[in-house]
Amino acid sequence: MLIEGFYHVAQSNWAYAYDKETIHLRVRTKRDDVEQVVAETGDKYDWERTSADYPLSKVAADGRFDYWEVAIKPPYKRVSYCFRFTAGSETLWMTENYIGHDQPTPTGDYYDFPYVHEVDLNTVPEWAKSAIFYQIFPDRFANGDPSNDAPGTAQWGDQPTPDNHFGGDLQGIIDHLDYLVDLGINAIYLTPVFESPSNHKYDTVDYKKVDPRFGNNELLRKLVDNCHSRGIRVMMDAVFNHCSEQFPPFKDVLEKGEESEYADWFHIDSYPLQVKDGIPSYDTFGFFGNMPKLNTANPKVKHYLLDVAEYWIKEVGIDGWRLDVANEIDHHFWRDFRKVVKAANPEAYIVGEVWNDSLKWLLGDQFDSVMNYPFANKLLEFFSHTEMDGFTFANSMGRLLMRYPQQTNEVVFNLLCSHDTPRVLTCLNEDKRRLKLCVVFLLTYMGTPCIFYGDEIGISGGGDPDCRKCMEWDPQRQDRELFDFYKLLIGLRRNHEALVKGSFRFLKADRGDQRIIYERFNRNEHFTVWMNNTEEPTVLSHPMETTDWSDALSGEGVQPVDGMMNIELEPLGYRILRRTINK
Amino acid sequence: MLIEGFYHVAQSNWAYAYDKETIHLRVRTKRDDVEQVVAETGDKYDWERTSADYPLSKVAADGRFDYWEVAIKPPYKRVSYCFRFTAGSETLWMTENYIGHDQPTPTGDYYDFPYVHEVDLNTVPEWAKSAIFYQIFPDRFANGDPSNDAPGTAQWGDQPTPDNHFGGDLQGIIDHLDYLVDLGINAIYLTPVFESPSNHKYDTVDYKKVDPRFGNNELLRKLVDNCHSRGIRVMMDAVFNHCSEQFPPFKDVLEKGEESEYADWFHIDSYPLQVKDGIPSYDTFGFFGNMPKLNTANPKVKHYLLDVAEYWIKEVGIDGWRLDVANEIDHHFWRDFRKVVKAANPEAYIVGEVWNDSLKWLLGDQFDSVMNYPFANKLLEFFSHTEMDGFTFANSMGRLLMRYPQQTNEVVFNLLCSHDTPRVLTCLNEDKRRLKLCVVFLLTYMGTPCIFYGDEIGISGGGDPDCRKCMEWDPQRQDRELFDFYKLLIGLRRNHEALVKGSFRFLKADRGDQRIIYERFNRNEHFTVWMNNTEEPTVLSHPMETTDWSDALSGEGVQPVDGMMNIELEPLGYRILRRTINK
Repeated sequence: MLIEGFYHVAQSNWAYAYDKETIHLRVRTKRDDVEQVVAETGDKYDWERTSADYPLSKVAADGRFDYWEVAIKPPYKRVSYCFRFTAGSETLWMTENYIGHDQPTPTGDYYDFPYVHEVDLNTVPEWAKSAIFYQIFPDRFANGDPSNDAPGTAQWGDQPTPDNHFGGDLQGIIDHLDYLVDLGINAIYLTPVFESPSNHKYDTVDYKKVDPRFGNNELLRKLVDNCHSRGIRVMMDAVFNHCSEQFPPFKDVLEKGEESEYADWFHIDSYPLQVKDGIPSYDTFGFFGNMPKLNTANPKVKHYLLDVAEYWIKEVGIDGWRLDVANEIDHHFWRDFRKVVKAANPEAYIVGEVWNDSLKWLLGDQFDSVMNYPFANKLLEFFSHTEMDGFTFANSMGRLLMRYPQQTNEVVFNLLCSHDTPRVLTCLNEDKRRLKLCVVFLLTYMGTPCIFYGDEIGISGGGDPDCRKCMEWDPQRQDRELFDFYKLLIGLRRNHEALVKGSFRFLKADRGDQRIIYERFNRNEHFTVWMNNTEEPTVLSHPMETTDWSDALSGEGVQPVDGMMNIELEPLGYRILRRTINK
Repeated sequence: MLIEGFYHVAQSNWAYAYDKETIHLRVRTKRDDVEQVVAETGDKYDWERTSADYPLSKVAADGRFDYWEVAIKPPYKRVSYCFRFTAGSETLWMTENYIGHDQPTPTGDYYDFPYVHEVDLNTVPEWAKSAIFYQIFPDRFANGDPSNDAPGTAQWGDQPTPDNHFGGDLQGIIDHLDYLVDLGINAIYLTPVFESPSNHKYDTVDYKKVDPRFGNNELLRKLVDNCHSRGIRVMMDAVFNHCSEQFPPFKDVLEKGEESEYADWFHIDSYPLQVKDGIPSYDTFGFFGNMPKLNTANPKVKHYLLDVAEYWIKEVGIDGWRLDVANEIDHHFWRDFRKVVKAANPEAYIVGEVWNDSLKWLLGDQFDSVMNYPFANKLLEFFSHTEMDGFTFANSMGRLLMRYPQQTNEVVFNLLCSHDTPRVLTCLNEDKRRLKLCVVFLLTYMGTPCIFYGDEIGISGGGDPDCRKCMEWDPQRQDRELFDFYKLLIGLRRNHEALVKGSFRFLKADRGDQRIIYERFNRNEHFTVWMNNTEEPTVLSHPMETTDWSDALSGEGVQPVDGMMNIELEPLGYRILRRTINK
């Protein structure tokens, strides 16, 4: 066994409480190197009476490593443990300070999970596990009230530029809720709606006022109420890293310099405030002088922003916050943010915008979830015209799954594209069959899926601003076949809990082969998904002992022959099979 | 290069801010496998203008891995980076999602340190870096006031039992401060002094009252004042995990059961409260029914205990808290504890009792330090009659150093023994020469050393209660030679900052050889420590280009011969050399 491949630490994604009775332990070994891993566990204060062996299961793999996991339920809220590895005739033990062939003595050097505190539990909102989000960029979704259009509003459907406005507004969203109900989504993520000079509104001027081009606070409440009465949750965008240069406190500093009472609301390197050679003399988002960074460590700023976070929950009843540029704000701020938000709405869903490994925000004290761009990147790479094989794709997914605790994986915000990336259809070279494979994967995978407005009717577009085109409302110009496909898959996910909370496993993900099979299952249902991510027709075969399968979308029965399931697939085709598990 | 040996994550001990301008990056490779590691860094918002390569240095090793580190000072508080590994003609790059031979494109998949926030900095008290602690167990240190002795007090010097009391008290400590000043220590760690039925007082009855057998609150203030006027800091013991069964809220629950207003101050599984088959029906420390565990998640309990923490800082001016059974209390409690304590005394030193890897408490939001029992274990193993060689010992030290951020290593509470372990002299089979080697190492190593009362005059003893013998005050029965040795070494550390804050490196730590050489250095001074941890006399040789060395204790000049320093050492002998660095 390759000892250098072993990895475990008694914390974070490697050892965590899943709920108040259950601790998950994970360990890493070199791929295909170890046959069995067992956790030798017990209570350090009474080892004799409590010791128990727990075999781990191989739950994921990447190119180099296998990942093993076990859920244990210790009798007294705490557990000490070591790992025993077996391969052939060799047995190795690993404790916190030792790896070797001699069985260690409990519990001196053992790993320790000292106590499961309910208050420390990493709890995520239950509803978010079965939510299917729809992201709306309000200026581009629907213009429901032309009377609030500002002069110079562009013609609906024109080419977006960084600066033009199209008149989309909250009334437009309200007007199209039936459309969203028909599509089947049950949650909306709204990009910012507060007063701001830009079309995207990521540069806030007034955090407590809906932008007049979008409507007013009353209308936002109406939107949320109308959503709620249709069973749709609403998450809004919290832009707390930076503000607009027109944000009154910043304007005050611009005017009064060091004398301003708001000088310590920002990170100012030198006066006068200026941008020289492209470098502002104050901290900003990126190097954008018009987006000054807020000093969230200043208790006044923190109080101001936390009040905003609470205000919109209490005033209009939103169900969550997506946190813009979340990784550039301090952790103390986010810890207090979580307390305020969860006190106002214990079921609020907190999703950070972090493009990298986000574990340090996902340990229960800060966010529930992050926007899963690494997932999108790998999905698009596999399903586009690349040579990535199933093996590499499955490895990428396995690696991502093992980064976070299971509860996070259950609500991680999985997307294919957003207002910050090219459209999924464009990434896939406008190939709708490839788009469908992506959508099938998204909607049959773990995590909380999100659909970017218009993807469901075939809107394409490159990077910002092209990805922010106006929504198409003329049915003649909508791809209704695609819409029906989205609706079908959304309906499938919503009707089958196994697709939401079930276990996930690749059944086929081979080197040099772009065809994959994976399964999802819980105690009641079992799904297998068959994908031909190639341009050739194929028959995909896999051993199946159970015979009671049917096509999950058509209901047609599908039988294995001599213990082998053979599924005929068109180029870039897929099939989803389902069976009920008889208990 | 063995890719399975590579390890880095963009957080915790692998990537952290050391101060507001400096980020430390660490990476792990298989031992002796990689020749060079370089961090390719830059600002993700302006890579062109900011990109810079930083070569890492090999700062530690363990049996299987080398650990590389670099301190970088990014221009705009943030850095994105990947690592480049070289061995022979092979070059590999590693990003968050990739390891391979192709140079990656900045900065999509790069590791990211998004922003250095001063409020998130892991800051430790500066004074603790140069503190030398002395741990006092008050019942056993000195009886300064026989009038407060309870009936049945044992004869000073009798054999300790789990339950007997010896009459030691705060007046006894005050009376012997000159002794401590003479020894040279500059900080005291007092085990608990609050009202409690036991001799150890780890079962508190009244958190705001000094135990009458020890004195009173006024006397505690006098002790702290007298310490401060002598330049001695005082740290006390916070026993917040559990209380005495006589703690009034618990007594109330014992009496009133579920009806008690204090029922939710504890973790109660069932009523009536009882201990059945050794298992209490309520959570306790271990399974000790007389030490009920406090429900620190209950805001009332939290408020009560945080008030205690603040009270003693404000009332008597203590300089820190040592946290008993710190790992069994929730993280939310400790985060708030830190805020309250640092608000009351920004220089307060917070030391958790955690016997395992303690990283999750040491990231800046909870403790400054932990009791470094893993260090003690390895030190005692090496310097006792085992066959552990220098190679293995150095590997253990390297592994421990790489567990924590540098600022933690600078104040980690290094000890040889405590009231919870056998005495160091006893662990070393009463061999004073071995004890001296241990003490030399302790006092010339990184971290905050602590001496357990009486070790300095030759007190021995096995595990609790034998390790808690009465202090010996009769000079005839004290080992004054040992005392003078401690005094000499303490003085050396206090007079030379290089021994406190300097870099550390092993110069010799070989397989099958128990002789070691290590160095400590800063910009002004350079020390080398030579140890013959064998029973045979030896000459220890090491190449030395510089010639201006002298014996740090005697002042005698010591010269290398033909570029080779040859140091004659007695069995279990040591020598400390020093030179001034000419700038």
